[in-house]
Amino acid sequence: MPDDPRLLPMAADVPAGGPPVFERMAVVGLGLIGGSIALAARQAWPSALVIGVDRNEVLEKAMVRHAIDVASSDLMIVSEADLVILAAPVRENLALLEAVAERIAGEAVITDVGSAKRGIVAAGTALPPRVVFVGGHPLAGMARGGFDLARADLFARRPWLLTPPGEGRGEAWDSAARRVAAFVEGLGGKLETLESAEAHDRLVAFLSHLPQLTASALAGVVGEAVGEELRLAGRGLADTTRLASSPADIWRDICAANADEIAPALDRLIAALQGVRDGLGSDRAIEDLFDTANRWRETLEESINKSSDQEIRK
Amino acid sequence: MPDDPRLLPMAADVPAGGPPVFERMAVVGLGLIGGSIALAARQAWPSALVIGVDRNEVLEKAMVRHAIDVASSDLMIVSEADLVILAAPVRENLALLEAVAERIAGEAVITDVGSAKRGIVAAGTALPPRVVFVGGHPLAGMARGGFDLARADLFARRPWLLTPPGEGRGEAWDSAARRVAAFVEGLGGKLETLESAEAHDRLVAFLSHLPQLTASALAGVVGEAVGEELRLAGRGLADTTRLASSPADIWRDICAANADEIAPALDRLIAALQGVRDGLGSDRAIEDLFDTANRWRETLEESINKSSDQEIRK
Repeated sequence: MPDDPRLLPMAADVPAGGPPVFERMAVVGLGLIGGSIALAARQAWPSALVIGVDRNEVLEKAMVRHAIDVASSDLMIVSEADLVILAAPVRENLALLEAVAERIAGEAVITDVGSAKRGIVAAGTALPPRVVFVGGHPLAGMARGGFDLARADLFARRPWLLTPPGEGRGEAWDSAARRVAAFVEGLGGKLETLESAEAHDRLVAFLSHLPQLTASALAGVVGEAVGEELRLAGRGLADTTRLASSPADIWRDICAANADEIAPALDRLIAALQGVRDGLGSDRAIEDLFDTANRWRETLEESINKSSDQEIRK
Repeated sequence: MPDDPRLLPMAADVPAGGPPVFERMAVVGLGLIGGSIALAARQAWPSALVIGVDRNEVLEKAMVRHAIDVASSDLMIVSEADLVILAAPVRENLALLEAVAERIAGEAVITDVGSAKRGIVAAGTALPPRVVFVGGHPLAGMARGGFDLARADLFARRPWLLTPPGEGRGEAWDSAARRVAAFVEGLGGKLETLESAEAHDRLVAFLSHLPQLTASALAGVVGEAVGEELRLAGRGLADTTRLASSPADIWRDICAANADEIAPALDRLIAALQGVRDGLGSDRAIEDLFDTANRWRETLEESINKSSDQEIRK
């Protein structure tokens, strides 16, 4: 067992204390996101209990870094939790949802951190009434995953999306969502409640899934084409393909769960690239491409700078 | 006129002194690359004369930062130079080549820094014998251009490609290329002589031009699709579209000059993205995509890390 959690230092960018929103949290899956949630939650609410569920090898690392108070590779340990965070790959979370709900002894809120929401939000409406599912998605990933990269300030000033169910939304959901919102804000995240899981999946198909697949496809195409001359690459290729280090298992699930939204996003990029190809000989076409790209990139930079200005740097 | 150049501090990562390879250099076009060459050359060889040619507004900035000793917006000033560096956009360099060669009074070497080489290398073989053209390309760009971002250490440990002419190559070229190589190494660059301008243009179509056009197309597609919700973007989109800030004028010229090599590179990426689209429902297809991408990205990171390890950080 780790030292008394009250003796842990507080991260400067996580708001201190106040009574815990949840007294007994269980994080299922201690990768980059789950591990960071555990680290951030223990710093935000030192008196709350953080339970970790994963393989023994990962649990040991999490204990060493004082990310969790209690560790188990048996899902049974979640039975006493009042908040369960599903932080495994998307399809595993879906299977875990029912398994966790069955094991909860009293009342509890379950949330997840997956990048595709329609399936799990629909499944969440079919749970017994004492368990409420609130779909969540922190936009705080990095190119690489895994507990080793987890950090308490991963969510500071980063958006964290909540996705309400459609018809299943009621007083119980609203109440649970208010608590999850307070939890997210305690971790430093910027809460945004989207209109629906459908709206979420369409949005992230463009904001996240398309850039990922593009970076991976580009790294593959360039590598296969130039081989060892990849050593001559400049900063541009390095930036554009940074995401190509992302783990296959996470993305296999996201692609399966959001295929119908990712496909039209890919179609739009393919059409744009085909347009560039056809316009290579035309100054006007290339100027239009860069003018549009410059404009959107500027919008993006403004929001990045705004968020960094507010961030308290360590 | 700036202060005595011998009083300038030396950058830690530029090898000090030795007699100048060229006594009187002229840099035509003081953007990011040309400006950085001027800054690095004045630090490497304080006794050499650095002449800058650009618009008055840019020349004033270059004088204030002591990047150049002599400034003129009239190309006539290059007449006494023993090295002329063409650092304007690609098509402008091509027009400048002949204009510069006409104005050179004695013997001189002319080089360029453009990202497309076949046109200018071919034109270089047609110059009068007392002027030798050595095509060059430092792979040290950034997303944004302009003199304001110029820095003396821009080329430190970065590849700088030389492109020999085909049949026109002889003793004069070899001799000039040896001097340009010493100049490049004096600026901190890692010299690589490619087989030909053709090999160069094919290589950079993949290493540089394809990532640029992909980043620009992606920024445009995502921006148009999500509009103001771009503010919810995470680090992934930011990395993947960093190049989308690049200036249109530079890329209009590159696309025109290298269209026939860029087109098949775009075709390969379009085919790869179409393959991803068709494989969205298949775990195997997505795993293959990520395995290939992970592997090439690792190769790329190894070479980036190797180059950063060697870099002397300020």
